[in-house]
Amino acid sequence: MSIGVCYYPEHWSRERWETDVQEMADAGFEYVRLAEFSWGRLEPERNAFDFEWLDEIVALVGDHGMNVVLCTPTAGPPRWLLEEHPEIRQSDRDGTVREVGSRREYCVNSPRYRSETERVVREMASRYADVPHVVGWQTDNEYGCHDTARCYCGDCTAAFRDWLAERYGDAEGLNDAWGTTFWSQQYDSIEQASVPAPTPAQDHPSMVLDYRRFCSDSIVAYNRLQAELLREYDDWFVTHNFMDRFPAIDLYDIADDLDLLSWDSYPTGHVQATEGQTPPDQLKAGDPDLISFNHDLHRGVLGRPFWVMEQQPGDINWPPHSAQPAEGAMRLWAHHAVAHGADTVVYFRWRRCLEGQEQYHAGLRRRDGSPDRGYHDAARAAEELFDVGNVDAPVALLHDYENVWALSEQPHAPDFDYWALVQSFYRALRARGVQVDVVHPTAELSGYGAVVAPTLHIATEDLADHLTEYVAGGGELLLGPRTGVKDEGNNLRPVAPPGPLTALVGATVERYETVPDQFERTVVDDDGTEHAVRTWAERIETDTADPVVEYAGSEREGSTASVRNAVGDGHVVYCGVWPGQDLADELVASLLTRSGIDHTTRMPDGVRAAVRDGHTWVLNFTSDHVDIETDSEWAVGNATLEPFDLAVADRDLIGGLAVSKQT
Amino acid sequence: MSIGVCYYPEHWSRERWETDVQEMADAGFEYVRLAEFSWGRLEPERNAFDFEWLDEIVALVGDHGMNVVLCTPTAGPPRWLLEEHPEIRQSDRDGTVREVGSRREYCVNSPRYRSETERVVREMASRYADVPHVVGWQTDNEYGCHDTARCYCGDCTAAFRDWLAERYGDAEGLNDAWGTTFWSQQYDSIEQASVPAPTPAQDHPSMVLDYRRFCSDSIVAYNRLQAELLREYDDWFVTHNFMDRFPAIDLYDIADDLDLLSWDSYPTGHVQATEGQTPPDQLKAGDPDLISFNHDLHRGVLGRPFWVMEQQPGDINWPPHSAQPAEGAMRLWAHHAVAHGADTVVYFRWRRCLEGQEQYHAGLRRRDGSPDRGYHDAARAAEELFDVGNVDAPVALLHDYENVWALSEQPHAPDFDYWALVQSFYRALRARGVQVDVVHPTAELSGYGAVVAPTLHIATEDLADHLTEYVAGGGELLLGPRTGVKDEGNNLRPVAPPGPLTALVGATVERYETVPDQFERTVVDDDGTEHAVRTWAERIETDTADPVVEYAGSEREGSTASVRNAVGDGHVVYCGVWPGQDLADELVASLLTRSGIDHTTRMPDGVRAAVRDGHTWVLNFTSDHVDIETDSEWAVGNATLEPFDLAVADRDLIGGLAVSKQT
Amino acid sequence: MSIGVCYYPEHWSRERWETDVQEMADAGFEYVRLAEFSWGRLEPERNAFDFEWLDEIVALVGDHGMNVVLCTPTAGPPRWLLEEHPEIRQSDRDGTVREVGSRREYCVNSPRYRSETERVVREMASRYADVPHVVGWQTDNEYGCHDTARCYCGDCTAAFRDWLAERYGDAEGLNDAWGTTFWSQQYDSIEQASVPAPTPAQDHPSMVLDYRRFCSDSIVAYNRLQAELLREYDDWFVTHNFMDRFPAIDLYDIADDLDLLSWDSYPTGHVQATEGQTPPDQLKAGDPDLISFNHDLHRGVLGRPFWVMEQQPGDINWPPHSAQPAEGAMRLWAHHAVAHGADTVVYFRWRRCLEGQEQYHAGLRRRDGSPDRGYHDAARAAEELFDVGNVDAPVALLHDYENVWALSEQPHAPDFDYWALVQSFYRALRARGVQVDVVHPTAELSGYGAVVAPTLHIATEDLADHLTEYVAGGGELLLGPRTGVKDEGNNLRPVAPPGPLTALVGATVERYETVPDQFERTVVDDDGTEHAVRTWAERIETDTADPVVEYAGSEREGSTASVRNAVGDGHVVYCGVWPGQDLADELVASLLTRSGIDHTTRMPDGVRAAVRDGHTWVLNFTSDHVDIETDSEWAVGNATLEPFDLAVADRDLIGGLAVSKQT
Ligand SMILES: [Mg+2]
Ligand SMILES: [Mg+2]
Ligand SMILES: [Mg+2]
Ligand SMILES: [Zn+2]
Ligand SMILES: [Zn+2]
Ligand SMILES: [Zn+2]
Repeated sequence: MSIGVCYYPEHWSRERWETDVQEMADAGFEYVRLAEFSWGRLEPERNAFDFEWLDEIVALVGDHGMNVVLCTPTAGPPRWLLEEHPEIRQSDRDGTVREVGSRREYCVNSPRYRSETERVVREMASRYADVPHVVGWQTDNEYGCHDTARCYCGDCTAAFRDWLAERYGDAEGLNDAWGTTFWSQQYDSIEQASVPAPTPAQDHPSMVLDYRRFCSDSIVAYNRLQAELLREYDDWFVTHNFMDRFPAIDLYDIADDLDLLSWDSYPTGHVQATEGQTPPDQLKAGDPDLISFNHDLHRGVLGRPFWVMEQQPGDINWPPHSAQPAEGAMRLWAHHAVAHGADTVVYFRWRRCLEGQEQYHAGLRRRDGSPDRGYHDAARAAEELFDVGNVDAPVALLHDYENVWALSEQPHAPDFDYWALVQSFYRALRARGVQVDVVHPTAELSGYGAVVAPTLHIATEDLADHLTEYVAGGGELLLGPRTGVKDEGNNLRPVAPPGPLTALVGATVERYETVPDQFERTVVDDDGTEHAVRTWAERIETDTADPVVEYAGSEREGSTASVRNAVGDGHVVYCGVWPGQDLADELVASLLTRSGIDHTTRMPDGVRAAVRDGHTWVLNFTSDHVDIETDSEWAVGNATLEPFDLAVADRDLIGGLAVSKQT
Repeated sequence: MSIGVCYYPEHWSRERWETDVQEMADAGFEYVRLAEFSWGRLEPERNAFDFEWLDEIVALVGDHGMNVVLCTPTAGPPRWLLEEHPEIRQSDRDGTVREVGSRREYCVNSPRYRSETERVVREMASRYADVPHVVGWQTDNEYGCHDTARCYCGDCTAAFRDWLAERYGDAEGLNDAWGTTFWSQQYDSIEQASVPAPTPAQDHPSMVLDYRRFCSDSIVAYNRLQAELLREYDDWFVTHNFMDRFPAIDLYDIADDLDLLSWDSYPTGHVQATEGQTPPDQLKAGDPDLISFNHDLHRGVLGRPFWVMEQQPGDINWPPHSAQPAEGAMRLWAHHAVAHGADTVVYFRWRRCLEGQEQYHAGLRRRDGSPDRGYHDAARAAEELFDVGNVDAPVALLHDYENVWALSEQPHAPDFDYWALVQSFYRALRARGVQVDVVHPTAELSGYGAVVAPTLHIATEDLADHLTEYVAGGGELLLGPRTGVKDEGNNLRPVAPPGPLTALVGATVERYETVPDQFERTVVDDDGTEHAVRTWAERIETDTADPVVEYAGSEREGSTASVRNAVGDGHVVYCGVWPGQDLADELVASLLTRSGIDHTTRMPDGVRAAVRDGHTWVLNFTSDHVDIETDSEWAVGNATLEPFDLAVADRDLIGGLAVSKQT
Repeated sequence: MSIGVCYYPEHWSRERWETDVQEMADAGFEYVRLAEFSWGRLEPERNAFDFEWLDEIVALVGDHGMNVVLCTPTAGPPRWLLEEHPEIRQSDRDGTVREVGSRREYCVNSPRYRSETERVVREMASRYADVPHVVGWQTDNEYGCHDTARCYCGDCTAAFRDWLAERYGDAEGLNDAWGTTFWSQQYDSIEQASVPAPTPAQDHPSMVLDYRRFCSDSIVAYNRLQAELLREYDDWFVTHNFMDRFPAIDLYDIADDLDLLSWDSYPTGHVQATEGQTPPDQLKAGDPDLISFNHDLHRGVLGRPFWVMEQQPGDINWPPHSAQPAEGAMRLWAHHAVAHGADTVVYFRWRRCLEGQEQYHAGLRRRDGSPDRGYHDAARAAEELFDVGNVDAPVALLHDYENVWALSEQPHAPDFDYWALVQSFYRALRARGVQVDVVHPTAELSGYGAVVAPTLHIATEDLADHLTEYVAGGGELLLGPRTGVKDEGNNLRPVAPPGPLTALVGATVERYETVPDQFERTVVDDDGTEHAVRTWAERIETDTADPVVEYAGSEREGSTASVRNAVGDGHVVYCGVWPGQDLADELVASLLTRSGIDHTTRMPDGVRAAVRDGHTWVLNFTSDHVDIETDSEWAVGNATLEPFDLAVADRDLIGGLAVSKQT
């Protein structure tokens, strides 16, 4: 397991480089990421490349025994290029052009930008192909950042028409798939199709879903262009640094062109993008379940260890609030990532930059170059971490971007957020110490003791067969609400939900409604315990299934909210409500028990355990002291955790683990 | 009294039609609305009309003994038409064109769209003129929906200049009417006038008022075009389906071209467009006073029974929250409409549509075609309802779109909403069981025992004469605040309010102020009871009038908030504050007593009574059980109302009626 | 000390003028401001000037013994001019043109508008140069109102490039100053530079700061054009009416071209633009510390008495809430202005205007021309006020627009507002009865007993020398947080803050963080008292300085929040947190004591005292009665203040003053 750092030598004087690189090596770092956003420096004028500085720093890093990850510099096209070819720029939905003056102005569907990309990537790749310690590449930077995943320019309109023609053949195919008789929206020709534009009323949901597919496909294609070019020159690895639960790119698609997935982890920022007011401890160290969801996703998609390509180094500039991370948080995050399958954690960035848009973003080193807290935390993590095999998760959580796209266009309730629903189930699993692979619904499931699908809004017959095979073979499946509602065209199915999953679930949804805060909607489980539900509630009509949760309260007494169906050697539980935290725990604990998966007693919020390759990490994301009941010995730390501290045991403790906060 | 349904056969396979139509007839429905948004299906290419499908379904409906209401399909122009003539599209205020891809993109001032409208309307009207069971037409659909009542395109600019030239002759007339010396805004020529545009500061209020008049007039003219064309072919009725308190079209003007008024009633949606958090019962059945205000308006404008052209059938897609309607709500709404003067209630729509923007909107039938709760409710209403004459309301409430337009441009207080002020007075009347005609201030008033004008912000000498004649002849008039402030040009009058109404009121407004929430402004009536006021407070100087309500609290002790003036054989009460619910009841109860109008004791919120033609409906919009004290016999139901239930008596119970919620 | 009034004779019939002017004179007014927004009336067609009406009213004012202040009419160009030259109009950042139809549409960088300005100013100035009682001019009106201080048009882009070329020479100089290597933002030529535009991510902060400098410089240049033209014709004074804490124009720069500063004071409006819900008393009379900050700024910049050019006359139209001012408030404001150095208070406006955008704005006279409360208050003020010399303030508060510009672009915390931070310190000074000169950091400081700098975010070596000289010479300096962070290019300095001020402060900032509401961050002073802090907190490492305030609470116990350093004969206190009200008082009281400046016991909010030229005003901005403990005699009023009342003593009472609210 390795530690690395992002370095921008071009921001600093040449005299400083040796000191910097020496102190990276001193801290035990093994990787240095270079050249991101360096196009303007590498090619100050068209075809007048200046590689001397990059050659020098690449050599220096190698001389200190470290490896280099290079970046293609395409996220920041130089000014002269955009001036020469202004047609490269994106357009907003209302036609406003995204102007030069920050970054990411370019459209991935611009033929010109594709050819310019090829030119610069070839130039860089050919230059470093023979340098052995240049081991990998990051393509571009954070595709889609600043709302750039979806563009509305003329190139995109043309490309969207081609995409539709490829998918549907002609207008008749399109009209059939989308259902355009509604409101006289029929197309006479695919040439009439366009990207979303400012219409008086809502967009057609089928068009929206296809446009979002197209946008994701466009980025996938652009990334493939880069990846294939890079592979022409060497067998270095190719990765891209993705973002926290980024909704606009289908990670399962783009992963086909990557050797390695990586993501950029900024825990104190991500947590401020979720519902409600962030608790103080989370402002200081993030929400471990939000962070590890991303870890488990970027591990799950390829079924391989991942990297954190940018790890928060200290305070950051972009969220609403910028509290200082807690003491030790930068070390805690590295261990947490490794416990969830990271092989390398690369801190962003070496030193606080004095210029430009990110001055309020810390580095491992202060503005004067001296070490900051992040440097000491990173060095300690580098010292403590050791090599382990991959995570072996007993549970799969099914996740799918098409559901993100369909549900965000028609949330129906203001607080129906796909990611929040997923988190309700995921958090319950993590509170029981269970490792979770986040995978696509079509993934091979036979190896999993249990499968949780928070929602399968769009569902096909094939998916039904796939899940039925899993359950019939002895699998235990937990399905969440709003499942089996839509077909692949984002049309309603002409049958009650869960549509193609009806036989599997053994029940249908008789009606649904949104649950505003002013409703006090509760359900009662088969033990007679009442649980709150929120946001979404379905009334279920059972067929072969048995009710397991019913509605409480006079109006709905005795009507069914959740059912269990036996299918072959397994069971499926369908939960027709968005569960509160207690109901989610009840459903998950019962699932784990049924499937015989080891789990802990329910851990308090902010305290988490994770097993990787026979080692157990116990991690404390709170400002409380935490006691771990165990007779294990500890490879790192011990059975009493300081605030924001962790311990690592050399064996799998999950089955009998109990932790408690000191009061 | 009849029940009907909106049907879109073009969304369903031909094989289903007979089942559907049969089951409509089985439920006792008498009307089927057809062809809305069907232009693309009727004319897939220019002049290549396909009427076969419509002929067939029209015949089928007739064969089952039901009548057809057809719709002109102009709310959804086909894609080929907008591609041929992109100039038809509207523009936003900042110049953004309203693009194709939903509905209502067209500008009513587009000469091209007018000619296209004529073409398609003639085609349809000529085809069905000889079909006896095609009894009427709905023009277009929901004029102004999605903020399309006001357009800022070049055609509108040109038309607005013509409109101004017609009204004012030349620039001098315009300058005089608007008062353009202020900020050097003089026009040299009417050709300099334009629709509102993004200026640095606020718009000139006189321009705004005239632009809003012009927009309403434009829709009136466009609708007249359609109505006159339709009447060339047959003597069927012509109506249009208006919307909940729709502010941009002067209903009194457009009604001149219609035989029948109708509106689209979605109680659980409308209630979420009002102030504050919606109580749970209202999320399930709406606010009866909000619904019936619309009933009374659409009945009052023409003084004839109206239709509900679209009645909510179950859960709906467009408000923030979509709770399921309460059990029986779909029946309750039909009775409520009839009690307030509806002759026909048409449910929208037969079956939940699988495609397009309104998938989350229920129908009477589920997505699989089976009956949903709405179907059973509608069938029960069809069975229970019986024919009655029109409502005979003892009270008129004066309402006027020019006041809506002027006050929404200069609300002065953030919560000064015209409709909310109107509702304060209207709700007090309805809580006393009184039927109310909502009419224009210039309406004939001699038949009314009492008249309530929540505000007459713009007031003329003619209006003063009209009201004085009413009062002098023995009428009882209650006037609300902010009355008599403006002239017809939306300029201040050079005298204190109520301006031309000063002699009638016998007092003037010495000063006014807005009342933010952090002020605790209260008044005390002549019984010494304190009442809260909100939003707006005037200090009144009496002349011939007597004070009836004074301000409480040290700062304003003894100053006058409301006065009563005796004029001829009647009285006028002027209330210079926005009354809270208790003060509104006090004012209204006293008005009803003075005028000798039968009324109930004050009913609890959500429980309402209404008399039509010698029958009394008592309606329960709450989840409580309600007891009615009466020795009447019941045509429908009985003296104990279940939640969301109703009863109908065969006589007028209002005078002695008392109802109470069970506790 | 004088009272005046703004008059718009062009809004009223000629017959009324004599009455109006007579009643101005009767009230003791000495100045009448005329001709603002009169271009359309003065020049109805190009070169067809009509001065007759203005000649007449100017003469009439003179005949009644009053003086005239004329306005250049450029804030409201006539419609014909904008139609002839549409290129004069401003553009928004997204390219939307600011259209004709209100006011202030013009761009100060339009060469055409500059020549038109010259034309109209010469015409007016030449006409009235020989009229002795035309004593001064106001240029334009409220530069920058309605967000017009920053324009994004082509003229501005061209002018910005010239400005940059002047400042930096060439692209290399620009790239060095801004730090454009970050994100490959290098310029190849200054011709690539542009005004801010809709880029995907944030703007470059160095570009933003320079653009804001450029916008301010552009207005300064435009005003200089007017001022120099006016001075060609006579030696009348030239002023401009600025606005409440207006952030976009550097008052220190523009003041060089003005003889007199004046501002427009609308207390009940300004107070609603600050954080949180406004208390009722402030809705009725404003916040005295907010008002007087503006007085002290407009006095401090030139070190001379100032004018209130527009004084609120009653209720106003533009803030969210429009309560009536308290009884006597219009008199209270005039006294308050004079106490803080005003020589003349001009009420806006004579009579409520019946037409146009400001109908809901009161005048001293009602809409019918009769006197309103403001007239009586103004007349009373005119009678009570007497001539005095200038304010002699013992304390300087350092304030700077470059800090406003830099911090508003990178506030880092959502509630980090420059003006609010300044107010925290200023309010503490005013609660102790101390007069404060608001001056530029480079101002001569030797005359001040104490200096307070709420923040010096951008700080240079020269500034450090300047402040060190002040302190070493015996000065007492209080510095607020976030000081010494940036260089003049808005880049971070490569050393810890306070950068160039480190030796002076004797300490450095080891880290900082934002303090969201959910943190309970407190500090403890050297007396052991705990104080709340908000928004911003720094942890300080001391060198020569001594800690005076430390953080409380387990996590940060013992770390330093504020230090004191002895330098030569004086001291500097650096406070690294945004102080709550108690900590600000503690810091200020200690500063005043150290520097031997007379001050009162801490006065309650809303009660304030101010000394001018040996007279003490005690002013009550609350609805409570207030007792003043003193044996002084009173020139105006007495030792018991009614609500919203005041008293004036003929000597300096500050040293021993104590006031208390009656309970
Ligand atoms: Mg290699
Ligand atoms: Mg007929
Ligand atoms: Mg002179
Ligand atoms: Zn594009
Ligand atoms: Zn138009
Ligand atoms: Zn400009």
